[in-house]
Amino acid sequence: MRDLMSLSERPEIISLAGGFPDTDSFPQEVFDEVWRAVADHHKASSLQYGPTEGLLELREAICRMMAEDGAQAQPDGVLVTAGGQQAIALAIRTFIDPGDIVIAEGPTYPGAVPTLTTYQARVLHIPLDPHGMSIDLLEEQLDRLAAQGQRPKLIYTIPNFHNPGGVTMSRMRRERLVALAAERDILIVEDNPYGPVRFEGEPLPTLWELDGGAGGVIYLSTFSKILAPGMRIGWVAAPAPILRKMNLGKQAIDLCSSTMSQRFIIEYLNRCDWREHVARLNTIYRRRRDAMLAALEEYFPREATWTRPDGGLFVWATLPDYIHTGELLARAIERHQVAFVPGEAAFLDGQGQNSMRLNYSGAREEVITEGVGRIGAAIDQMIDLQRALGGGR
Amino acid sequence: MRDLMSLSERPEIISLAGGFPDTDSFPQEVFDEVWRAVADHHKASSLQYGPTEGLLELREAICRMMAEDGAQAQPDGVLVTAGGQQAIALAIRTFIDPGDIVIAEGPTYPGAVPTLTTYQARVLHIPLDPHGMSIDLLEEQLDRLAAQGQRPKLIYTIPNFHNPGGVTMSRMRRERLVALAAERDILIVEDNPYGPVRFEGEPLPTLWELDGGAGGVIYLSTFSKILAPGMRIGWVAAPAPILRKMNLGKQAIDLCSSTMSQRFIIEYLNRCDWREHVARLNTIYRRRRDAMLAALEEYFPREATWTRPDGGLFVWATLPDYIHTGELLARAIERHQVAFVPGEAAFLDGQGQNSMRLNYSGAREEVITEGVGRIGAAIDQMIDLQRALGGGR
Repeated sequence: MRDLMSLSERPEIISLAGGFPDTDSFPQEVFDEVWRAVADHHKASSLQYGPTEGLLELREAICRMMAEDGAQAQPDGVLVTAGGQQAIALAIRTFIDPGDIVIAEGPTYPGAVPTLTTYQARVLHIPLDPHGMSIDLLEEQLDRLAAQGQRPKLIYTIPNFHNPGGVTMSRMRRERLVALAAERDILIVEDNPYGPVRFEGEPLPTLWELDGGAGGVIYLSTFSKILAPGMRIGWVAAPAPILRKMNLGKQAIDLCSSTMSQRFIIEYLNRCDWREHVARLNTIYRRRRDAMLAALEEYFPREATWTRPDGGLFVWATLPDYIHTGELLARAIERHQVAFVPGEAAFLDGQGQNSMRLNYSGAREEVITEGVGRIGAAIDQMIDLQRALGGGR
Repeated sequence: MRDLMSLSERPEIISLAGGFPDTDSFPQEVFDEVWRAVADHHKASSLQYGPTEGLLELREAICRMMAEDGAQAQPDGVLVTAGGQQAIALAIRTFIDPGDIVIAEGPTYPGAVPTLTTYQARVLHIPLDPHGMSIDLLEEQLDRLAAQGQRPKLIYTIPNFHNPGGVTMSRMRRERLVALAAERDILIVEDNPYGPVRFEGEPLPTLWELDGGAGGVIYLSTFSKILAPGMRIGWVAAPAPILRKMNLGKQAIDLCSSTMSQRFIIEYLNRCDWREHVARLNTIYRRRRDAMLAALEEYFPREATWTRPDGGLFVWATLPDYIHTGELLARAIERHQVAFVPGEAAFLDGQGQNSMRLNYSGAREEVITEGVGRIGAAIDQMIDLQRALGGGR
């Protein structure tokens, strides 16, 4: 993943590998006004250390944002983090000892994979279908574990516009998941970076909301996708005893998140309706998604399948099983100057070898079309090669 | 420590516990100008993700700053971190498995203590004297370990204006330490947040410089004390293979540090001479240190001793051994509305029970004088109490 990120320094390569939001569309006059406000009224405090849990004004604003989505939280039930990534890292660090079982979707967020590996979690993947994680298969897995006297520590899930899966968990499955986790006494970590980044359909309740404050859910989100990622500001909402442990973990990692970044967000939220910015982003992303779906239809082989996301940043595409996307990537970069995330990066057990994640938020439509076309050409060559070697169909 | 930080929200309490630099003295016109430059030329990129290792322009600027101090590094040999705290956390995370031995000064940086505990390091403290870590005692310790077939993984040291010790390692000891570590094949982690924050005397070469690129030193520093901490930007300089591992660690923790913060520092360094700002801080801190030393002379009991720092932010004071500074702190907060860091927080083995760390950078002279006076009164009461109970002398 890190090496893929560094491809962004090779301008001849079209990268559909990243997860870069559009930041050009952030209004210049708003940026200017927010910084003028910070400079005029908060110079010394934006340069100073802040509390580990984050500035109170920001935690209050986060609670108001969550409340608009029906998710209740109190400022002292929120911990500000360095983006969603740190929220995930703190949750795993806090709960996982070597060998502990974590349930995750298959595929799961590629950025969580190294953290799960570091803490030596035993990850069991539950397949995704167009309605999200299969709760039937989850229940079967929990039964099998229970028969062996085992129980997962956490269920890590991205219900909205899954990264990389591109699907959204249905309302019925959300209700079943919350009830099942409560019944089996397993904590849910709900990762919701993309919730408001919805182009179609009606919002669904978060697991946090469905749990109704029963303490069964840790909720993670971030400003990275609804505002911009350069501030590196996300948050966790969780029951107080959990939050206290995560706070101690954060203190050891970085003392507190950038006060300057926090102040920028506070002043932004004081002046602007963040939903207007998200609406602007959604208009852009919907066009880019449409361009990607059209290009996939045109350039990918007939045997390929892919998800049609109602929001978020990613499409998950699956190729015939004799195409290894790791090998395809090497060929795609060197011969076709195009990159994507190979599916293996989204599993801890070697699955995903014929899948890939494609990002549409970070490139203009014509670049997406060209990029998908290049990947399609690389796939065609690889299929021809396989046939010449007697493989494939 | 965290609970002590939250005391800052109780305005009736004078806290000499923090390590807050002065941020009021950062010039308003500079702050305005830097943000105007960011807004005019770097809006979209300051809102976007950056590379895990940090923006290239910032790493180049860091190398120029280091070179001015005789410390050579290349931009690809530098990793930008979320302050010095993250640099420490990444170094420990990268090298320490449970049970590994770490040599640290006694006392050591209180913020490193929870990280060392988390990774289950076996910490051996080497006493400080007015010339820094005792290299004679270090050598004896290494010999004892070698006799048992053991060798430390790391030597963690703060040679300049030790936090909390308040002392600076002599040139001769620096040379001996680098030679000894090389001879015994032990990596040194040199933590240098305060180097330029010097009020008196001549700068001494860093261990990094003395090592001359031999690969025996990991160098950590931060903009927190020479510019301001609210950006949460520090750095590591290290040999490439080490840096690569730390980069992977950072990627798992937060992907990258605040791009907005990094851009602020780049534009600041492009426009201003950071040494002028440090000179301004040093003038302020020298006065505050002098106020603290005078107040200690006036209000602390004759049996107490303390360090006289030539720079940095802290004085380390040691009381008669029948005074437990943890107990003293509870009394000081509740009855005298004053706080400090008890010495125990700077050890992993229960030492430091009659010592304390006092900060002079974060308060004006009259507040320092009043605060030290209140601690002196709390000590006097505790001595009286001990005598009444038949303890003490």
